[in-house]
Amino acid sequence: MTFAIKGDILYSKSLNKVSQNENSYIVCVDGKSEGVFKKLPAKYKGIKIYDYSGHIVIPGLVDIHLHAPQYSFIGLHMDLKLLDWLNKYTFPAESKYKDLNFAKKAYDIFVDDLKKTATTRFAMFATIHNDATLYLMSRLEKVGFKGYVGKVNMDRNSPKILVEKTKNSVKDTILWIEACKKFKNIKPILTPRFIPSCTDELMSELSNIMKTYNLPVQSHLSENRSEIEWVKELMPSVSNYEEAYDRFEMLGSVTNTIMAHYVWPDEKGIELMKDRKVWVAHSPSSNRNLGSGIAPIGRYLKEGVKVGLATDVAGGSYLSMFRAIEDTITASKIRNSLIDDKYASVTIEQALYIATISGGEFFGKVGSFDKGYEFDAIVLDEKDIPTVLMPELNLLERFERFIYRPKDKVLAKFIAGKKVV
Amino acid sequence: MTFAIKGDILYSKSLNKVSQNENSYIVCVDGKSEGVFKKLPAKYKGIKIYDYSGHIVIPGLVDIHLHAPQYSFIGLHMDLKLLDWLNKYTFPAESKYKDLNFAKKAYDIFVDDLKKTATTRFAMFATIHNDATLYLMSRLEKVGFKGYVGKVNMDRNSPKILVEKTKNSVKDTILWIEACKKFKNIKPILTPRFIPSCTDELMSELSNIMKTYNLPVQSHLSENRSEIEWVKELMPSVSNYEEAYDRFEMLGSVTNTIMAHYVWPDEKGIELMKDRKVWVAHSPSSNRNLGSGIAPIGRYLKEGVKVGLATDVAGGSYLSMFRAIEDTITASKIRNSLIDDKYASVTIEQALYIATISGGEFFGKVGSFDKGYEFDAIVLDEKDIPTVLMPELNLLERFERFIYRPKDKVLAKFIAGKKVV
Repeated sequence: MTFAIKGDILYSKSLNKVSQNENSYIVCVDGKSEGVFKKLPAKYKGIKIYDYSGHIVIPGLVDIHLHAPQYSFIGLHMDLKLLDWLNKYTFPAESKYKDLNFAKKAYDIFVDDLKKTATTRFAMFATIHNDATLYLMSRLEKVGFKGYVGKVNMDRNSPKILVEKTKNSVKDTILWIEACKKFKNIKPILTPRFIPSCTDELMSELSNIMKTYNLPVQSHLSENRSEIEWVKELMPSVSNYEEAYDRFEMLGSVTNTIMAHYVWPDEKGIELMKDRKVWVAHSPSSNRNLGSGIAPIGRYLKEGVKVGLATDVAGGSYLSMFRAIEDTITASKIRNSLIDDKYASVTIEQALYIATISGGEFFGKVGSFDKGYEFDAIVLDEKDIPTVLMPELNLLERFERFIYRPKDKVLAKFIAGKKVV
Repeated sequence: MTFAIKGDILYSKSLNKVSQNENSYIVCVDGKSEGVFKKLPAKYKGIKIYDYSGHIVIPGLVDIHLHAPQYSFIGLHMDLKLLDWLNKYTFPAESKYKDLNFAKKAYDIFVDDLKKTATTRFAMFATIHNDATLYLMSRLEKVGFKGYVGKVNMDRNSPKILVEKTKNSVKDTILWIEACKKFKNIKPILTPRFIPSCTDELMSELSNIMKTYNLPVQSHLSENRSEIEWVKELMPSVSNYEEAYDRFEMLGSVTNTIMAHYVWPDEKGIELMKDRKVWVAHSPSSNRNLGSGIAPIGRYLKEGVKVGLATDVAGGSYLSMFRAIEDTITASKIRNSLIDDKYASVTIEQALYIATISGGEFFGKVGSFDKGYEFDAIVLDEKDIPTVLMPELNLLERFERFIYRPKDKVLAKFIAGKKVV
């Protein structure tokens, strides 16, 4: 399985550096990149070439936090803040996935729509329901996606329609993990919803499962100030929210961990986040829609906290990682102008880095076109953009312009060497 | 010219109230609405009916501040704040419109793209160049748009490539106004760029022209804190920026006035804005992109400052008034959460009001489907939105959902009774 893509190739080399390669080739062998070439090397003579000349080609975008079941009500119910929003809208909506027929209908729409976007890899939440979660995973696998899906755990502070008994939560989790063995590219990730909805007993059991199966972990951390206060009341023995996960060894000390939001870092807790190399799933749309705040991404980038990008559907109101890139930049500007000018706002180079190689590292060698990386690529459609008036733009400027224009679909998409769009 | 539109008709009745009319008719006679009807009255039997059953129909959206020449570089150069952004990018870009061939190419693209959007009425800036401005106006008139275009005045603190001598600025303005008499629907509006780029002498002359020709006025006010400081230095005799316009009677005391941005109201100046019924052109995208701040729209709505909505291309990075509605809501949430929780964030009802009837009043009876209003209507395309899972949504909820989804084009558009899309 050897082929090449020809086009205007742009990718991130590091936080502040991009590689711009107009009219060049990326070669893919067995699902991995062989690197970028100005001229196709002689040894690849005669291989299949996808010719996207004149179009921008970038690595597939990596969405490290979204809730698949919430897509059914995306763009609605933006009148409340986090905890009220969960109780009034989200928990009732997620409870519907107990009905496998509803779940199939909803997940079919979700997966069909996700396929058209720029997203190639993801870490997503499902619901507490095993059958629906396995159905979602099978649909994602069929498209050719690679990524993680989590059956959610929640055994307290949740409504009757969406709560588990501790023992059942543990039992179902193990059954689900075993059932996941049939998947090749879609993998299970341990998913305690967040501290307020998981008892200490459940967290201890999940920690054991994490070690037994060597599973990565995803959860929510310090999204909203009321939530942080609540955690303090629920776990008076820890000195910050970060520690609440760490005491169960679920803050990156054993396996890779994603913590969504992290809008309000604790000054001691942030040291834990750095030491344990925990990924912050930056969710600018959701943080704005639910009035949570603006995460200090400029600080995280400067101080070395790992950051990946997230749409956080449906607190976030779009599936488009292009808009998540735009909102990362614009939210950081508001923060810089109005709240804290100690850290610079996020540049287009940095936003591309976060959306590709930085989040991609959670999945292994993902998010770059350098040799040895898994071959995830998307081709951008610049039509409808008045480029004719500015023929002098370089590739990065063309990408910036693309990001600010209303686009959510891609012209073509490859995941680990497989063409899915 | 009598016809009707059939569809799911939604429009604003007042700040907090909408009228929802599923499966209803709006009748248009001679460019004006006869009102909304559940059943078509007998006297209209046999008239032409545009059947948009199942689609949302709302009044055309009113963009009361954008810069047509800046569309050529939309989505670029978002790394600087206002004053540096003007000098480094905007003034050089606008200077190109001296060349009528360039202007024709650029304005053709701009008008073609604007036609596809939700915008039906506008107040826009051109450049200092008469020929290019008249060309833009003729193109807009040909599409069927109604609205105001301003030849810009600037005679100080501007680069050599884009500055006028005071006398020439006055002379050209009169020539331009006289030449505008050939247009039926596109009207001239007096457009001193902003205080820093206009001498007192020029402002006095423009004030006379305003009175002679009874022209409305548009300009910029209190967008950015450095700009406000600069105005204080330039005009030490006035106690606030609002007064700087008022001393030339160009703050709504003689004719209707639009002031763009108004992010940072002065506590005395805001009383002038209320008394003189000046429209604030709220530009949430631009205010964010240029790090200007977040205008206190919740306060303005509560205290009775008039507000209209604006894309402010190209400080704003899109032509889509749908996104301007979305950003009005989300920016107000950030303000409410992080800066000032004294005023509630903007609701979807209020955002629709601002984007239609509130801004529309600048143009006369515009922005409603009540009897007597000019018939501006757009039909929304909800496809690609997973509505099937929520058949119970009401019309306002469907509209909210549409706003948060990635849409920028309309299915159909009528301006003063003329179908233009």
